[in-house]
Amino acid sequence: MPKISDRGFRMPASPIRKLAQYADAAKQRGIEVLHLNIGQPDIITPQIAIDAVKNHNDPIISYSHSAGNLSLRKGLADYYVKNNIDVDYSNILITTGGSEAICFAYYSILNYGDEVIVPEPFYSNYYGFTTETGARMIPVRSTIENGFALPSIEEFENALTPRTKAIMLCNPNNPTGYVYSKKELEQIRDMVKEYDLFLICDEVYREFCYDGEHYSVMNLKGIEENTILIDSFSKRYSVCGIRIGALISKNKEVIATSLKFAQARLSPPTFGQIAAEALLKTPDSYLKQSFSEYKERRDYIISELNKIKGVYSPMPKGAFYSIVELPVDNAELFCKWLLEEFEFEGTTVMMAPGNGFYTGKKMGETQVRIAYVLNKEKLAKAVRCLKKALEVYPGRVCKDE
Amino acid sequence: MPKISDRGFRMPASPIRKLAQYADAAKQRGIEVLHLNIGQPDIITPQIAIDAVKNHNDPIISYSHSAGNLSLRKGLADYYVKNNIDVDYSNILITTGGSEAICFAYYSILNYGDEVIVPEPFYSNYYGFTTETGARMIPVRSTIENGFALPSIEEFENALTPRTKAIMLCNPNNPTGYVYSKKELEQIRDMVKEYDLFLICDEVYREFCYDGEHYSVMNLKGIEENTILIDSFSKRYSVCGIRIGALISKNKEVIATSLKFAQARLSPPTFGQIAAEALLKTPDSYLKQSFSEYKERRDYIISELNKIKGVYSPMPKGAFYSIVELPVDNAELFCKWLLEEFEFEGTTVMMAPGNGFYTGKKMGETQVRIAYVLNKEKLAKAVRCLKKALEVYPGRVCKDE
Repeated sequence: MPKISDRGFRMPASPIRKLAQYADAAKQRGIEVLHLNIGQPDIITPQIAIDAVKNHNDPIISYSHSAGNLSLRKGLADYYVKNNIDVDYSNILITTGGSEAICFAYYSILNYGDEVIVPEPFYSNYYGFTTETGARMIPVRSTIENGFALPSIEEFENALTPRTKAIMLCNPNNPTGYVYSKKELEQIRDMVKEYDLFLICDEVYREFCYDGEHYSVMNLKGIEENTILIDSFSKRYSVCGIRIGALISKNKEVIATSLKFAQARLSPPTFGQIAAEALLKTPDSYLKQSFSEYKERRDYIISELNKIKGVYSPMPKGAFYSIVELPVDNAELFCKWLLEEFEFEGTTVMMAPGNGFYTGKKMGETQVRIAYVLNKEKLAKAVRCLKKALEVYPGRVCKDE
Repeated sequence: MPKISDRGFRMPASPIRKLAQYADAAKQRGIEVLHLNIGQPDIITPQIAIDAVKNHNDPIISYSHSAGNLSLRKGLADYYVKNNIDVDYSNILITTGGSEAICFAYYSILNYGDEVIVPEPFYSNYYGFTTETGARMIPVRSTIENGFALPSIEEFENALTPRTKAIMLCNPNNPTGYVYSKKELEQIRDMVKEYDLFLICDEVYREFCYDGEHYSVMNLKGIEENTILIDSFSKRYSVCGIRIGALISKNKEVIATSLKFAQARLSPPTFGQIAAEALLKTPDSYLKQSFSEYKERRDYIISELNKIKGVYSPMPKGAFYSIVELPVDNAELFCKWLLEEFEFEGTTVMMAPGNGFYTGKKMGETQVRIAYVLNKEKLAKAVRCLKKALEVYPGRVCKDE
């Protein structure tokens, strides 16, 4: 039997999805599983998107342009201009989710063995995509004690090698919820400029900054040719399933190169593009309402979690995630145990083990990532359930007692 | 300004799509462009698919399982069983088009620098995907004189090196239209077994074999663990835009590894999966009608092309493509000239230059790939146009005169 590849062997299973089989089994036993593991919002998709798909009357569901429909690119450019990001449609490639935009960026700028510096903890799939590309992810550590603020530029500089090609940020951050300040981003800008690196920034949670304005890397002066923006419709409009994202850059060579990768896979999904174009006309009230809802949930769940002995979460400033420290010996075993052996009033909680968001084996071992994508009633249930679980979990370590 | 990657530089522009800008310009000048360049069928999509999407009433367009919806995987397994391919849903991953299935197969089995042997000419994006993966495509040449039959096993063996990891076939073949016989496939089977290689076979045109039965690699005995099938809904049901394909293998390690890559990109498109599941219930009459239509077009266009002096096309046995030899000095320049400088009664023809389907620089230089995806009336117009163009083209070389 021929062997699978080393990259296939090294490829991590998603920490967000790898416990899915245990959740399925729990559901089959009749247990309600509250999903705090995955950033799948429970917010209703704007009807405008669903109507657009229903009203699409093309008799053939055909390929689109590899860069995405021109009308969608133009409409998306208008959205950025409205958000003070000065681009036009020629700077935009429509991709199959933000995921594909990251892949195209990596393929276009990274050689085998090249390195990307990323603050840790990071969105776990960044690590997957660097593995896929044959590149290496070099973490610089942000800490829960510091609320996961940007590590010092010295730490970034210590991570530099001749193979460093890019810095990757996620802002607002998944999994930490941290929002980088303009000042922090300007420090990164200076470094990117000094060492002539690419800066890739995933800003898919742009609209969800609860304690201040969002500052886009596209507005950092002097590194226009170095900057690649990753975006997605998924979270903004609760349409994760349409699989429409975008890669944006003023670097024409990056766009031209990414387009070649885009041509190879033919085109982004047609129905998704129809939905996405309609979504650009979503009334502002929709985003305002989502914003308030998430903010309320954040305030609630973080405060409730911090009331549980030994549990600690910093206050996330954006997105809808938090990295939470738990009083357990091993958070992955605890998460598995929650699904396999625990229930409280017919309910259990699924969370993403924290170690999947770090490179080091021991790191994040006592942490989980939670996504507050359920309504307050369910969040309350989840908190009660988690509290009960921690009371009886055999691997509990009472850090604060 | 930081540099793009070597792989990005080496990545070929799609021969099928790289002339698109010239076609756009021609259309803007009011010229009708007959698209023989791309396998975008003009056959109407089954209404059942469009209705399923219109009737989908989920209020949130959410992620699906990374392997695709269970009901779709189960339904697709039934389709294979009906087509004498004995698999179950656990052997199937739903992918974003057949393109993604190829990528997952490559990532799962190929290390950087590994080699895949592919009969040449080949579907150009195979080359793109090996470049993306950091692997190498090693061509073995099939010839127009031989109707693009499978090259001899000796030639495959001559291409073997310690880095050879797989053989890749496309059957029925894009771009040649050749259909490999059971005997040819058994020769490949013996080689795959002897050298313990993977065999990847793209069978997306399975239903379009005009002169005999299709034989699937999944039915080759003794190499079940070596075989990976690539499939897609796109051509079968004229739904290229739904972006739904599949990777099928009885090798559990291949499926488990591919699933990790699938998890990283979260899920295949939700609307596309809904359409695809409905399509599994398409009445047989639909495929019969498409089959007759394509067969009639094939018979017509190949016979008409061969009537033009200096033009030669073998008779394709399947799919809806043919590699056609033209009496021109350079087919790419000719294709560009057709779009930029030629028109006949307000019409011109777009074709895919042949050299993009070969690795060697000079190979296929006087060939084009045509796709007979237009109705007979348009095909007749295209043939007339091509004939006129060849009469006046300055780079004409009268091979047969």
